[in-house]
Amino acid sequence: MGFEITNKILENLTTYIDTKNDAAISTLFAEVHYADIAEVLDEIKFEEAVYIIKLLDSETTSAVLMETDEDTREKILKNLTAKEIANEISELDSDDAADMIAELPEERQEAVMSKIEDEEHVKEIEELLSYDENSAGGLMAKELVQVNENWTVLKCVKEMRIQAEEVTRVHSIYVVDDAGKLKGRLSLKDLLVASTRTPISEIYIPKVDFVNVIDGAEDVANIMRKYDLEAIPVVDDHQVLLGRITIDDIVDVIKEEADKDYQMAAGITQDVEADDSILELTKARLPWLFLGLLGGIGAFIIMESFHGVFEKYAALFFFTPLIAAMAGNVGVQSSAIIVQGLANDDIKGSINSRLLKEMLLAALNGIILALFLFLFVWLSQGKIALAIAISVSLVVVIIVAGLIGTFVPLFLNKRGIDPAIATGPFITTSNDIFGILIYFMIAKMILVL
Amino acid sequence: MGFEITNKILENLTTYIDTKNDAAISTLFAEVHYADIAEVLDEIKFEEAVYIIKLLDSETTSAVLMETDEDTREKILKNLTAKEIANEISELDSDDAADMIAELPEERQEAVMSKIEDEEHVKEIEELLSYDENSAGGLMAKELVQVNENWTVLKCVKEMRIQAEEVTRVHSIYVVDDAGKLKGRLSLKDLLVASTRTPISEIYIPKVDFVNVIDGAEDVANIMRKYDLEAIPVVDDHQVLLGRITIDDIVDVIKEEADKDYQMAAGITQDVEADDSILELTKARLPWLFLGLLGGIGAFIIMESFHGVFEKYAALFFFTPLIAAMAGNVGVQSSAIIVQGLANDDIKGSINSRLLKEMLLAALNGIILALFLFLFVWLSQGKIALAIAISVSLVVVIIVAGLIGTFVPLFLNKRGIDPAIATGPFITTSNDIFGILIYFMIAKMILVL
Repeated sequence: MGFEITNKILENLTTYIDTKNDAAISTLFAEVHYADIAEVLDEIKFEEAVYIIKLLDSETTSAVLMETDEDTREKILKNLTAKEIANEISELDSDDAADMIAELPEERQEAVMSKIEDEEHVKEIEELLSYDENSAGGLMAKELVQVNENWTVLKCVKEMRIQAEEVTRVHSIYVVDDAGKLKGRLSLKDLLVASTRTPISEIYIPKVDFVNVIDGAEDVANIMRKYDLEAIPVVDDHQVLLGRITIDDIVDVIKEEADKDYQMAAGITQDVEADDSILELTKARLPWLFLGLLGGIGAFIIMESFHGVFEKYAALFFFTPLIAAMAGNVGVQSSAIIVQGLANDDIKGSINSRLLKEMLLAALNGIILALFLFLFVWLSQGKIALAIAISVSLVVVIIVAGLIGTFVPLFLNKRGIDPAIATGPFITTSNDIFGILIYFMIAKMILVL
Repeated sequence: MGFEITNKILENLTTYIDTKNDAAISTLFAEVHYADIAEVLDEIKFEEAVYIIKLLDSETTSAVLMETDEDTREKILKNLTAKEIANEISELDSDDAADMIAELPEERQEAVMSKIEDEEHVKEIEELLSYDENSAGGLMAKELVQVNENWTVLKCVKEMRIQAEEVTRVHSIYVVDDAGKLKGRLSLKDLLVASTRTPISEIYIPKVDFVNVIDGAEDVANIMRKYDLEAIPVVDDHQVLLGRITIDDIVDVIKEEADKDYQMAAGITQDVEADDSILELTKARLPWLFLGLLGGIGAFIIMESFHGVFEKYAALFFFTPLIAAMAGNVGVQSSAIIVQGLANDDIKGSINSRLLKEMLLAALNGIILALFLFLFVWLSQGKIALAIAISVSLVVVIIVAGLIGTFVPLFLNKRGIDPAIATGPFITTSNDIFGILIYFMIAKMILVL
């Protein structure tokens, strides 16, 4: 598969840049895919990256820039003039162009836009910038091939040739009426077989999947995945064709969404990578840890208030990490299944039936685990009342943890909040505290402390 | 977007099936996408699903079957004869056909294969079954459009028409030599512009991405995502073209891989959904919970061995849930970043430099958190030695937890084991025990217990 970044290549590159050997750099990258060049730029010093971007032609560098890490891109763009950025953007499809503009600091956006020569392109970018970035409008490109239902095959083929120049991959030919409303799509095969004077209205396929411009990015991803689509047209409320979304952008949405949910479940608040700086990683990790610290202090306060019974039932205190761990684990398990089900649009039925199911499930798991713990405590401590108290508490704690883990993401989702924040440390911490509190309260009742 | 499953539709469907009103069922599903029919089948009783599969034509039902949940499909296939399954498989592309065969119990596979009439299809399925299901060979389909470099444009167009009949979406035209070796690809545009007698060898593009048949599914996904490919040819060690992989299958790979990693991080051992039975969900959740229980018992044993110092330093015991929680959270955070980096092929450099970085990061986080905890303990307990002991322990515990979280997935990955198993309860539980052990040992040293 051709190119692989080696230390040798990176060393050579530094030498070429130091000696301003532009010809050697151009030769080095001549046959290299833009995604590979982007990886090189992510590895080298940003001054070197800027040098390379300024050296290579905009057709290549615009594609390269869209593939680099966001941090790298931000640093490079900072070192380009408005005119230089405008040149990059002129080479990009409207969706990528709008994304690049959106990443610029607001005060630069206008300066760059005013330097783009193609008026049509500017108008398209402005339209795309007006949509929410997590909606179909924020994902779509304006470039597509559309034909009018009233055209003949001959006119259609002629127009298609012109339009196809602008479009990287054609995928589908969309048919619209005079008002621009999406009517259907055209198969290339039918087009080639039909006589040149046939009107398009006679040969187009009226059945076509589409999404509304305000539909959420995740919904679009679910639809394209479900129906195995490689492109989908985007319309407004009046069914007017506005743009289209291609599968490569959806692949990125699916991947980013999955990465984000995974990081949330692991207690990482921002989009970070293993190669980010220690400061960035600290910012992403410290908040949840701090929450965990507060939770731990909460547990401390609860335990301290039961302090007096230590002499009689010391073992009770030694099982608190076990209780906290089980509450945390059960909570994470049940919330993760709900969060994943919500993301995949799999959760049907009422919240109550979910809670009932989770209660039965948690009770089943809890009883099996509690039986084991009962035997351990009874045999090791020789106190049957203590063994009963601890194992009954465990069952109740597991049931409550499961219910919290199920209810919180469903509740957040109903309120329009991303349920993924309810996984990981959030659930673990709250379940730790609830768990220990319930545990001591039940033990108190059973042991008549 | 047309079809939505409502209770009304499901009720009608049951009535139609009870009254054997086949015409009504056919009409109901006439205009419905196979992915939507599959969702209906997942919702209704399996006897009803079998009835519908037997009623509708194989062209539809084969596609429907490939979209249902695996459980639903398994139950339906159990109730079809070998001949009926063979009819479904005859309608499928080779990759889906091989997947469906692979899901059958071994004793049925041969019976079904012997009932497929198209010999070519049987041979293709047998070839695909010989590859690992998580490799390029396990993902590819045999259906593709390939032309010989020695053909003329005229012959090429003629052959392409025949081949294209078999292929759902053409994507790319691959050029091979007489030995079947992949030489490049052909652009439809160049083909249309060239004169009919031009040999293909003069107009094809020799630059083409490809993967080896034994490459892993995740690697293929990373390549297609990186280069924004919609299809990629698959070759053997001699560069002979064997098949091709399309993006829709890769989307499923990405999604499944992400779901699996997420579930592992949440302590769920098998691929389950919120709608699975309580028994299945228990089987997926109980093993990790049991591990957590053992970890809790380990923590109990450690604490019990320090039992004697309770009178003097009771607070030490009340902070064990805090220590365990912090160790667990830090471990999950660091392992999650490594697991994600490995999956995205982002982790470069040596293990040692990773560990050093994690140590600095954990130390920074740890010191900030420990300062806060120090103040709390000092102010609430009034014992500075205790406050020092607890906060110093916290820093050490966090550093060790971070190192374990970083090292374990890197180590597993080096040994060829899926690093994702090192996240979630596994890391939490081992860090709980290590954390509490380290905590008491350091406290013992500082407080001279």
